Amino acid sequence: MAGTVYLNGQWLPAAQAQVSVFDRGFLFADGVYEVIPVYGGRAFLLDEHLARLQRSLQAIGIDGNDAPSWPTCIAQLIAKNKLEHGTVYLQITRGSSNQRTHLPTGSLQPTILLMTQSAPLHWGTPVPAKAALLEDIRWLRCDIKSISLLGSILLKQSAQEQHAIEPMLHRDGTITEGAASNYFGVKNGVLYTAPANHLILAGITRNWVLKLARGSDIEVREEAFRVDELSQLDECFLTSTSREVQPIGRIDDIIINSGGCGPITQQLIEAFHNSKRHHLGMQ
Amino acid sequence: MAGTVYLNGQWLPAAQAQVSVFDRGFLFADGVYEVIPVYGGRAFLLDEHLARLQRSLQAIGIDGNDAPSWPTCIAQLIAKNKLEHGTVYLQITRGSSNQRTHLPTGSLQPTILLMTQSAPLHWGTPVPAKAALLEDIRWLRCDIKSISLLGSILLKQSAQEQHAIEPMLHRDGTITEGAASNYFGVKNGVLYTAPANHLILAGITRNWVLKLARGSDIEVREEAFRVDELSQLDECFLTSTSREVQPIGRIDDIIINSGGCGPITQQLIEAFHNSKRHHLGMQ
Repeated sequence: MAGTVYLNGQWLPAAQAQVSVFDRGFLFADGVYEVIPVYGGRAFLLDEHLARLQRSLQAIGIDGNDAPSWPTCIAQLIAKNKLEHGTVYLQITRGSSNQRTHLPTGSLQPTILLMTQSAPLHWGTPVPAKAALLEDIRWLRCDIKSISLLGSILLKQSAQEQHAIEPMLHRDGTITEGAASNYFGVKNGVLYTAPANHLILAGITRNWVLKLARGSDIEVREEAFRVDELSQLDECFLTSTSREVQPIGRIDDIIINSGGCGPITQQLIEAFHNSKRHHLGMQ
Repeated sequence: MAGTVYLNGQWLPAAQAQVSVFDRGFLFADGVYEVIPVYGGRAFLLDEHLARLQRSLQAIGIDGNDAPSWPTCIAQLIAKNKLEHGTVYLQITRGSSNQRTHLPTGSLQPTILLMTQSAPLHWGTPVPAKAALLEDIRWLRCDIKSISLLGSILLKQSAQEQHAIEPMLHRDGTITEGAASNYFGVKNGVLYTAPANHLILAGITRNWVLKLARGSDIEVREEAFRVDELSQLDECFLTSTSREVQPIGRIDDIIINSGGCGPITQQLIEAFHNSKRHHLGMQ
């Protein structure tokens, strides 16, 4: 990332943005974040991201009342960085204390960071990719979008070593999600994805794709599929803010839909593109 | 914390020690740490702490080869801060990148932070305290001493709300450890503690107390005890670098040993004090 970042009320060149080593984000991963897509210079599904941010803050007991107006701050950040397409990264930690104690002492001022990252706007169908099946070693509050991400990093590294774009995580044989994505499977025309409980982060893109599917009369079931059912899937894809809808053609050595992009996946990719077109047209 | 800190080769006043917001410790909790006790101006069980640090670094794939000589650096830090009794905090993150990507790109320079915190030296028997039984929600690699600590923070907060000094965590009914401590139980003269697997961090104080117990002809079994066995314990205590050996007189509403400090606990507290006396005498 480069350009200008927002840090605690200041606009700073990225290279100059620093936090105290006593920041609880740095010492304890005591914070939460959001990655918000930007198409045509405007945040997409912003209300949904901000609602989830509030839920995350509430879940860990950080008071976000003194935060700036997010829509205004995000719009200013996008303008300052002349961001056309990409993402806004927003992180809030519990703030900085003058000593390291697990339990925060006194009244802390949360640390607020916003920055942007540009990315090209895609209209085509992504090439189907490989996912690596791995045991889900993460904590049991994956519904909180926290910066305690070392587990996800290690899982991403393992997937990369297997030449996969993302891990497909399972707990006791049941598929949960990716390290930074949600998985969908299609079987006999029905779309399955893991239910939104404490074992997954209900992605904003996941929820949007579910809405698009229901609007396209695709039958949807929020039911997790199991490792031993993978070979029976007709189609598989993952969703995330940065990858949108990404077909999965292979899970370890299991080839899905002959390695190609299936018809329901294709339909949802096009529906997602239409959402973007609509968003761009609203400028 | 105050005084002088060591950050990436520099000695800085604590208030001036800052890291980039792009540090992977701040964005991803991509780092590990140690808290090393200091008695009489010298680190206690330093070799054991440094060996565990190497294991943590290796487990997450951070190259610590360019790190300074830890014993020298720690001795300098103690001298600069005139630390008599307390702890040295040592943290290493994977370093700072110029963009936020889960997988580190390029060759990063690890971020190295050391600082001190003073604490009084205790010789007495701590007042038996309360522990709060809570479900262990943390990840499945608790053997890595990582800064991904939000789960521990939330558990500490829950324990505090129940007026307990520490959570006693259980997974599927089996006691694992505390949020920053290990638990021991005594039953019929035998000392039990959870085995050193991926569900706990094998504390240096835990290991030292096991050694002291074996040296005192106390029978030791590294076997976890279960929630439904708590009411049958004759004694209970926890160990940690900062609390050393802390008697537990109550777990939720279960009173242990009439709320007092039991004889084996007392024996181990005295053996631990003797270790400190020996360490102080070596100056």
